[in-house]
Amino acid sequence: MERTKFILDEREMPTHWYNVLPDLPEPLAPPLHPATGKPVTPGDLKPIFPMELIKQEMSQERYIEIPDEVQSVYRTWRPTVLHRAHRLEKYLDTPAKIFYKYEGTSQAGSHKPNTAVAQAYYNKQEKTKRITTETGAGQWGSALSMGCMFFGIELKVYMVKVSYEQKPYRRILMETWGAKCVPSPSQDTKAGRDVLARDPTCTGSLGIAISEAIEDAATRDDTHYSIGSCLNHVLLHQTIIGEETIKQMEMADAYPDIIIGCIGGGSNFAGQFLPWIRDKLSGKKPDLRIICVEPQAAPTLTRGPYAYDFGDEAGLTPLLKMYTLGHSFIPSPIHAGGLRYHGMAPIICHLYNLGLIEAKAEHQLATFKAGITFARTEGIISAPEPCHNLKVAIDEALKCKESGEAKTILIAHSGHGHFDLASYDAYLSGRMQDYEFPEEKVKEALAKLPQVPTG
Amino acid sequence: MERTKFILDEREMPTHWYNVLPDLPEPLAPPLHPATGKPVTPGDLKPIFPMELIKQEMSQERYIEIPDEVQSVYRTWRPTVLHRAHRLEKYLDTPAKIFYKYEGTSQAGSHKPNTAVAQAYYNKQEKTKRITTETGAGQWGSALSMGCMFFGIELKVYMVKVSYEQKPYRRILMETWGAKCVPSPSQDTKAGRDVLARDPTCTGSLGIAISEAIEDAATRDDTHYSIGSCLNHVLLHQTIIGEETIKQMEMADAYPDIIIGCIGGGSNFAGQFLPWIRDKLSGKKPDLRIICVEPQAAPTLTRGPYAYDFGDEAGLTPLLKMYTLGHSFIPSPIHAGGLRYHGMAPIICHLYNLGLIEAKAEHQLATFKAGITFARTEGIISAPEPCHNLKVAIDEALKCKESGEAKTILIAHSGHGHFDLASYDAYLSGRMQDYEFPEEKVKEALAKLPQVPTG
Repeated sequence: MERTKFILDEREMPTHWYNVLPDLPEPLAPPLHPATGKPVTPGDLKPIFPMELIKQEMSQERYIEIPDEVQSVYRTWRPTVLHRAHRLEKYLDTPAKIFYKYEGTSQAGSHKPNTAVAQAYYNKQEKTKRITTETGAGQWGSALSMGCMFFGIELKVYMVKVSYEQKPYRRILMETWGAKCVPSPSQDTKAGRDVLARDPTCTGSLGIAISEAIEDAATRDDTHYSIGSCLNHVLLHQTIIGEETIKQMEMADAYPDIIIGCIGGGSNFAGQFLPWIRDKLSGKKPDLRIICVEPQAAPTLTRGPYAYDFGDEAGLTPLLKMYTLGHSFIPSPIHAGGLRYHGMAPIICHLYNLGLIEAKAEHQLATFKAGITFARTEGIISAPEPCHNLKVAIDEALKCKESGEAKTILIAHSGHGHFDLASYDAYLSGRMQDYEFPEEKVKEALAKLPQVPTG
Repeated sequence: MERTKFILDEREMPTHWYNVLPDLPEPLAPPLHPATGKPVTPGDLKPIFPMELIKQEMSQERYIEIPDEVQSVYRTWRPTVLHRAHRLEKYLDTPAKIFYKYEGTSQAGSHKPNTAVAQAYYNKQEKTKRITTETGAGQWGSALSMGCMFFGIELKVYMVKVSYEQKPYRRILMETWGAKCVPSPSQDTKAGRDVLARDPTCTGSLGIAISEAIEDAATRDDTHYSIGSCLNHVLLHQTIIGEETIKQMEMADAYPDIIIGCIGGGSNFAGQFLPWIRDKLSGKKPDLRIICVEPQAAPTLTRGPYAYDFGDEAGLTPLLKMYTLGHSFIPSPIHAGGLRYHGMAPIICHLYNLGLIEAKAEHQLATFKAGITFARTEGIISAPEPCHNLKVAIDEALKCKESGEAKTILIAHSGHGHFDLASYDAYLSGRMQDYEFPEEKVKEALAKLPQVPTG
């Protein structure tokens, strides 16, 4: 009997997150204070994050224990399943073995709850009564709603107004879990009121929503702010994915030659590949290929310079050393909302700069074609973001067909597309288009990169 | 460590469906031919079903082996998880132990693929090139689209026009899996053309859609018809749910005192409780309580007479002995579309008539209140149908709180509500209403019960 799924019992769930920072061959460039150009201190972050998360952001401990209460909530859906894609392999007629680790069975439908639950827990420990965050299409806002629900914390989500109006399902999810969700710009913050005074019809942007969420958190003693990707502590929490997969690949008596994942802020893919990169760094598997897939509409690693930039459009965050298209760059409206980001997790950028991981950029139509192939072989309807992984995985499997090599391919599959069916409709009915790399727009945005102040 | 999930490895998946027919204390009343009043023969059904399914419909074999190819497809998502609802128990402060078997992780999001895959397989074996079916809100149509995709069979779904227009997501799901979905009434059948000639603006009904699907199948040699609930062979395929749960409850060292499920056509709940009723029939667990939950808007078991009636509004099916509200009865537009049915699976009706199972009817608002409680404790967003189970399970758990009894409650949870979030919005915003039992409408419909011809 061919095995299709590799399942860990919850008693075998990893008990520690893996922190790559102490294993990096060179240290990560520190985040800088935009006013002084000096490395950010824990004190700088204290008004918006709980101290335990600030410690994790800078920790040199290799393994950080997952608190019992977080493990207990994880067990409501974790460990997630590792699938062998027998039907896709057969359809492609490839000798490659394709595996995918699927995060779509969490109650929120993606990997995001892995960090949402952890962040809610640490906030609860420090008696935070209330959290604010921003959300674009609503993936992160809904995951954090679920996380806050589990720990009894109030949540207010500032959701970009155009998405709030076009995508009511994500807003309803947040409300079902008890969160409050308002369209941004709102009248609830000075940042929002200022925007509305200038332009009452403004449909919002992620930058404005971040400004509102941070202002709200910074001006109230009982409130913290929470972020869904990019930062070190967020990637740390996602490593549960890769730690589980290592055990599951052992069950399958297999080891990946290639690991493929899409990157927006980078947390899902880093969560999968960071535990594996240990073997590459230690020399156990020096030829392991790790391929990051980004959209042609926002090809950060493949087309951006490596420079200090703001994490948000509004310029409120510390300066982060990363590949960037410029914080004022607004990507074209591709359906993969989670990949529409100008920057990238500093850890991923650092590894890319060191030549330890690869990157590819893909066009939207080709990714949906791969998504349809996956749906019609494996059955799962993928979110537009992991369709990017599927495109590259299929390409690699077809290369194996040509060469005759039986490589092992591991896909980091971040979640389902149940709330993205309008995208599939656009593709199937021929209404979807590609977006070329917007060279001029990026040039303009890069001209506005911040100067790093020198003391 | 408290265990939250009880997971079977796919190698432990049951290999046989359980057929209750030979174990019934009295035989089931046979379906009758509406013209002759004589029991339906296999030959009567041959134009629309493959012979193997007709055999299963009438089989006296206690265990029927699940074909290898069906098991292989089941393994893409089965076995499903049995959860212990620790967080719900704690919230209710009850000594009861609450378990739920959750079918929402199938690619289609419900239990329906258990029979869709089996039916597609048997059709493929008999070289059926094409299948037709009807669908209301789209749950069954999408599950069968997935089933037909796995076996390379063409599918045409006649979808009630008002749902086709109001609920595009289910239509897109079907198309993503490669099925063709048309609004019914359509110009593609005589039945559809006749309706449109009389009323070009007709928004359709399940009865019309059934007529179109059956006409299409009956008039083409390469085409069969497929049905998603009610009939014996459909319930048979769903028993994989209960067979798995029995193994999982053993892992939990627990045995249910009460099993609770919602019933529309009855296949999900029968799939769970039939394997358990063996122990009630054999005397091993004589006091096992099995509670069927139906909506107040269509309370078939609790308010209907036990009589021969058509399975469909149009009067095309054989006559089935069942509790019924009359085949011409059209239930109020409650959100639980899967429970809006005038009749009930004959096996369930028979067991209810023998006093072996109980029934309760619930109001819509109370079921959504329970759904919100579940979402805010366990995290899962339930479809409106299983919210009915949750309501009764919470009631029973609260009774345990009063009495101090630590009963074990098992919930048959049929799937997620990702495509039903508009219902949650209606509830949360106070726009949802209850529907009383429509006594007068039912009286009218019951006056039109068919006469059984006597030879």
